[in-house]
Amino acid sequence: MPSQAHLDDRRAKLARLLGARPALIAAGVPRPRNYAANQYPFRASSHFLYLFGMPLRGAMGVYDGSAFTLYLPDPHPGQALWEGAPPTPQQLAAATGCEVRPFARLAASLRGRAVATLPAPDLETCLEQSRMLGREIRPGNVDVLDVPLAEALISLRLQHDAAAVAELRLAAEATEAAHRAGMAATRAGRRAWTVRAAMEAELAERGMTTAYPSIVTPHGEILHSERSDQELADGDLLLADVGAETRAGWAGDVTRTWPVSGRFSPTQRDLYALVLEAQRQAIAAVTPGTRYRNVHRLAAQALAAGLVSLGILRGDPIALAEDGVVALLFPHGVGHLLGLDVHDMEDLGDRAGYAPGRQRATQFGLSALRLDRDLLPGMAVTIEPGLYLSPAILDDPGLARLAGDRLNRSRLAQFHDVRGIRIEDDVLVTETGREVLTAGIPKSVDEIETAVGLG
Amino acid sequence: MPSQAHLDDRRAKLARLLGARPALIAAGVPRPRNYAANQYPFRASSHFLYLFGMPLRGAMGVYDGSAFTLYLPDPHPGQALWEGAPPTPQQLAAATGCEVRPFARLAASLRGRAVATLPAPDLETCLEQSRMLGREIRPGNVDVLDVPLAEALISLRLQHDAAAVAELRLAAEATEAAHRAGMAATRAGRRAWTVRAAMEAELAERGMTTAYPSIVTPHGEILHSERSDQELADGDLLLADVGAETRAGWAGDVTRTWPVSGRFSPTQRDLYALVLEAQRQAIAAVTPGTRYRNVHRLAAQALAAGLVSLGILRGDPIALAEDGVVALLFPHGVGHLLGLDVHDMEDLGDRAGYAPGRQRATQFGLSALRLDRDLLPGMAVTIEPGLYLSPAILDDPGLARLAGDRLNRSRLAQFHDVRGIRIEDDVLVTETGREVLTAGIPKSVDEIETAVGLG
Repeated sequence: MPSQAHLDDRRAKLARLLGARPALIAAGVPRPRNYAANQYPFRASSHFLYLFGMPLRGAMGVYDGSAFTLYLPDPHPGQALWEGAPPTPQQLAAATGCEVRPFARLAASLRGRAVATLPAPDLETCLEQSRMLGREIRPGNVDVLDVPLAEALISLRLQHDAAAVAELRLAAEATEAAHRAGMAATRAGRRAWTVRAAMEAELAERGMTTAYPSIVTPHGEILHSERSDQELADGDLLLADVGAETRAGWAGDVTRTWPVSGRFSPTQRDLYALVLEAQRQAIAAVTPGTRYRNVHRLAAQALAAGLVSLGILRGDPIALAEDGVVALLFPHGVGHLLGLDVHDMEDLGDRAGYAPGRQRATQFGLSALRLDRDLLPGMAVTIEPGLYLSPAILDDPGLARLAGDRLNRSRLAQFHDVRGIRIEDDVLVTETGREVLTAGIPKSVDEIETAVGLG
Repeated sequence: MPSQAHLDDRRAKLARLLGARPALIAAGVPRPRNYAANQYPFRASSHFLYLFGMPLRGAMGVYDGSAFTLYLPDPHPGQALWEGAPPTPQQLAAATGCEVRPFARLAASLRGRAVATLPAPDLETCLEQSRMLGREIRPGNVDVLDVPLAEALISLRLQHDAAAVAELRLAAEATEAAHRAGMAATRAGRRAWTVRAAMEAELAERGMTTAYPSIVTPHGEILHSERSDQELADGDLLLADVGAETRAGWAGDVTRTWPVSGRFSPTQRDLYALVLEAQRQAIAAVTPGTRYRNVHRLAAQALAAGLVSLGILRGDPIALAEDGVVALLFPHGVGHLLGLDVHDMEDLGDRAGYAPGRQRATQFGLSALRLDRDLLPGMAVTIEPGLYLSPAILDDPGLARLAGDRLNRSRLAQFHDVRGIRIEDDVLVTETGREVLTAGIPKSVDEIETAVGLG
């Protein structure tokens, strides 16, 4: 958890950016699963966690133009018996460095002022924010009045402070343990969910959870497949995209792809080496001042060059990347911001990911790029090129026309035992270059072949 | 998963009960965790799962007075690439036995009719139901217009059919594996979340999840504690309330309490034996025709008798139970309905748990009893007496007055190494008596002492 000093520092910086403009930051409330009392594990809004450090259910933090105050709902009768005694206001004040007041006093603190806010992730809290502020607040919408608050939080959260980096390291460490456990647990005849269980157990044993729904599948060509019921066969590649979320809410996000048998086939090895080389080049390009879209382009060009040398694509690698032909095999972006959210601050749309004046491209592939900023020290990003033999793409007549004869389908068909490969690491931009936070996770062909099936 | 024949049968029965009255059953939509694209694992509404068998995101099932039709939202662009190709309408029709239509045709099917519905568990779907039906639908509220639909579903879901019982057995089997793994993984010096991870991994390995947030804690005196960060010490009892949810959505719900060291202390053994005896008597009382509140009373009286013999309470056991003195140490109900929900149909308030004309008592303890029906064959209930040394109760002046000198506090203090014990099993009411679905889980002192610390 961040120390009170770190929280004080974050709030002081936010106060300087906001000046006299008041703001309200809601933690959100637990979401019912099948009925009101049976809830999903509570996850507070990332903006709230950033400023107040603790997942306080239903809490709202108010900046009144000079100081931050935490407003808390009253404990319900029976709370001490059923859920344990909540921390006292004094304890919370000591832990967060904020004055703590009962919820009943919140309305008076807002009265007659134009208060900026950001929508909580849950609709119930958004409706409460709407009632309190007298205007419509909806998840994912940022009102004009709220833009300065959004921009201020983005400017803080884009460049991670020491407490944030410490949390990202914790997440990376647990994520490493999960991937090693997943490789060790892999066997032909097991189902993918057995591997997923072994990976997630490593997180749970540390009191952590997943930062996003795990993808553990022999069908890596489905980019975000949540199905893990398939039985693993000897010739399969298993794609595992699994990341830890620390107790304070910070994310890891790593993908590895490994052979179920413990040995890559020659075709699998060829494409794996190609993705690995593209990732190596993309990581090497991460440095302050680099425009992230160019990291994406570099990865696409590296993939194109490799695909040409394998005879799968024909033509000039740079043109193949620019024209979107590579995107038929690499249809997503090379990565995104990482922080308290796995796609950090995606609740604010593209406002965090895209620098002012920049917009998403409409071209297939590039349109899925979530980040286009000039990199700054303290930013954390993922670097995750991939190659996929996706029927959803390859059987699409429009996309097929785009490729024309630049895609050699009969050659590609020889790689049918690949389906999907993605290699993803978490990278911190430093003053002079980069640090791969997840560098300890087996990645080379040798490291992976050694790690699979040991369990 | 239930077969199409079972689903057909359930829908035919519901149709007979509804007659010409139309109804709409919503599956609900995934709930965002920290932003829209990062969602909690989807869990469809239990009423929808009961009738249609599959967790179809955003689907609505409509009964038009003669037949059931499934309305499905259109796949979004990119769905095949990102999430996998959804089943075709033909495949869904074959799996569910219903005609399948696109969502766009739903409005016309409702126009001008007074359509009953039940609120989906998520607010977003409730707002959608409100728009469609032109009246306010809110989670947990049952409108007058909707009462016949609620009553019809309750009458079906109260008595489980063969497909439901098969699912409850699957849940019990996985829950047994989880509890055995938890006992085996217990060691002094480990944290409670390590034990919880071992238990939940058994469910995940079967492609299952938990039916409710697991309670794994050395502080069993907090009835629903979700904290598992405490380090386990040799003298602690560990209370684990963990149940599986099958892939089709059916719940298990079991509590065991075991010594971290593998050996009960004499005081722990005395109180454990007492709870076990109360549970034995309560289970024996489960039989068709028995009023469930009397099962609760019997458990309370058995606990009272044991507490008197240990010198912790003074007086007549029946009076101690009736006056609520036992409730100071056993403050919750002896159990509840079990089915697709762990508290089955609690989304309908007490309508399912309390027979018409019966209401919850206001007396402390009895007020937490979630079920008061005459038992029928096919009902599944939990039986879960417990004993707790809860500061939240024992330090409450009002409750202390109630006990007067009937509670021997200095004698009770000698049992300070207990904190909380609960023993809970899942019991199916049969034609002639009962079957304990979770009978395979270690429960006697000997069975438990053998199972702990083996891992």
